Amino acid sequence: MSRPIEIVEVGPRDGLQNDPVLMPTEVKVEFVERLIAAGVKRMEAASFVHPKLVPAMADSDAVMAAVPRRDGVKYIGLALNERGMRRALDAKCDEVNFVMVASDGFGQRNQNASPEETADLFDRIAVLAHDDGVPVSVTISVAFGDPFDGEVPIDRVAMLAGRAAKAGAIEIALGDTIGVANPWDVRERIAAVRAAAPDTTLRMHFHNTRNTALANVYAAVESGIDVIDASCGGIGGCPFAPKATGNVATEDVVYMLHRAGFETGIDLDGMIETAKWLETEGLKHPIQSMVAKAGGFPKTG
Amino acid sequence: MSRPIEIVEVGPRDGLQNDPVLMPTEVKVEFVERLIAAGVKRMEAASFVHPKLVPAMADSDAVMAAVPRRDGVKYIGLALNERGMRRALDAKCDEVNFVMVASDGFGQRNQNASPEETADLFDRIAVLAHDDGVPVSVTISVAFGDPFDGEVPIDRVAMLAGRAAKAGAIEIALGDTIGVANPWDVRERIAAVRAAAPDTTLRMHFHNTRNTALANVYAAVESGIDVIDASCGGIGGCPFAPKATGNVATEDVVYMLHRAGFETGIDLDGMIETAKWLETEGLKHPIQSMVAKAGGFPKTG
Repeated sequence: MSRPIEIVEVGPRDGLQNDPVLMPTEVKVEFVERLIAAGVKRMEAASFVHPKLVPAMADSDAVMAAVPRRDGVKYIGLALNERGMRRALDAKCDEVNFVMVASDGFGQRNQNASPEETADLFDRIAVLAHDDGVPVSVTISVAFGDPFDGEVPIDRVAMLAGRAAKAGAIEIALGDTIGVANPWDVRERIAAVRAAAPDTTLRMHFHNTRNTALANVYAAVESGIDVIDASCGGIGGCPFAPKATGNVATEDVVYMLHRAGFETGIDLDGMIETAKWLETEGLKHPIQSMVAKAGGFPKTG
Repeated sequence: MSRPIEIVEVGPRDGLQNDPVLMPTEVKVEFVERLIAAGVKRMEAASFVHPKLVPAMADSDAVMAAVPRRDGVKYIGLALNERGMRRALDAKCDEVNFVMVASDGFGQRNQNASPEETADLFDRIAVLAHDDGVPVSVTISVAFGDPFDGEVPIDRVAMLAGRAAKAGAIEIALGDTIGVANPWDVRERIAAVRAAAPDTTLRMHFHNTRNTALANVYAAVESGIDVIDASCGGIGGCPFAPKATGNVATEDVVYMLHRAGFETGIDLDGMIETAKWLETEGLKHPIQSMVAKAGGFPKTG
């Protein structure tokens, strides 16, 4: 196999936002530079939400002002409302990501909104990005299950995908926010979302909370998905909490795909080195990835 | 989905044999009893190898004499040579498992034998089990990659499977001893082994060293495999394989399969409880499974 798979690195945003360590701006910029050196071309680097809600992202304007602007490297900023969208556009993000929520329980607690209300809000603020000529993407969170409501109807996920496409999202990500997707369900939901948004690129965002993330990546790739979110070192959960809920580790995804012959453009050794840098210098606490510990096969790491 | 998948619990053998903690015989028996209470019907419980090579299995005769003999619970003993086979039969194992090795590098270090020599040896000692009316199965170790030689030719794995079937193995397991299988390769090797041994049941034995185990389980189940090895708590490894961390955790496999609608006969809560017992009492050190930490979804754990 030699089909290219695009890895969207989410470590500097989704990875850091829940970490108990508040990484200083200059260290975040070093993290971003190390990721670029390892071959990353597209990454979540900033979140324009209220600094009291997500203190780890309070310096997002400063981060965006300091990261290197190189040909072919694209930065994604997260925005959940009009103010966030304006800040993301002012900060010259290459792309703005909005989050629709697939379930009420999580939606009310996380964004104070129902699924429909998040779709309505996207209608309104997507226009701002369109006016600036900046692409917008949508992540549908808790798309595979909600920690408060339990199962999430597949029709609601498809409905939101249709709304996102209609409002001009260039890409729709299905987010397994709490790590409850299983690979059979991944294939079903991809098919349903494809039917609802046939002309929009799909991206997958998996957490490894219950060890299923790489199974879900495999199922997604077998369903024709070409874009996968992952975070260097698998950061994104609390390493000190019993229910560590990190993103799937970039080096684990890259290892599996490379071993099967796919191309990602990522240098596995460089990504492993960056994960180890996070562990020893960037965050100074243990990380969740397995390949950073075991090394690649047969040669790498 | 409601197809039944048989879980072979390997914790009491493959799990314990490399653990730094030497579990006393009576605690092993308690472990076995807890597994049975959680629904396990078939498990590796003993290894009849030289006690100097694998001290953790030195009490295998005593363990087999003490475990409860209940209707429908089957115990597998491992044997690598004639003396081991005779001990396993004397100990009244319900089934004896033999290991053929798919690569020279690992074979010479682990069993002092080439792949062909392990197949020749099986020809000779399988007869002893046949004479006693005891079923024998074969695990082909390092079937997806060798820590010393690197890639393992698929043809050699198929050749060994053909030899195992011809000598009367009731089941052939492909062992990813060092955790380097990827799900695409899993499907290819299953197809090749099926062609070589079309009438023999196949079983899969995955380690999660590089986080790919559940992806490999999914690929195997999609290929029609109905029997999966797993160890409670993800304990285990191989003393002769560098960095070969644990088996895939039983509770992680069971969680994924149940969530997708498959039946395993295992009680997930009971298995999680047993994994936690290993952590706090049985072994008194951290375990590798994720579902024992995070709990099931939406209800369990």
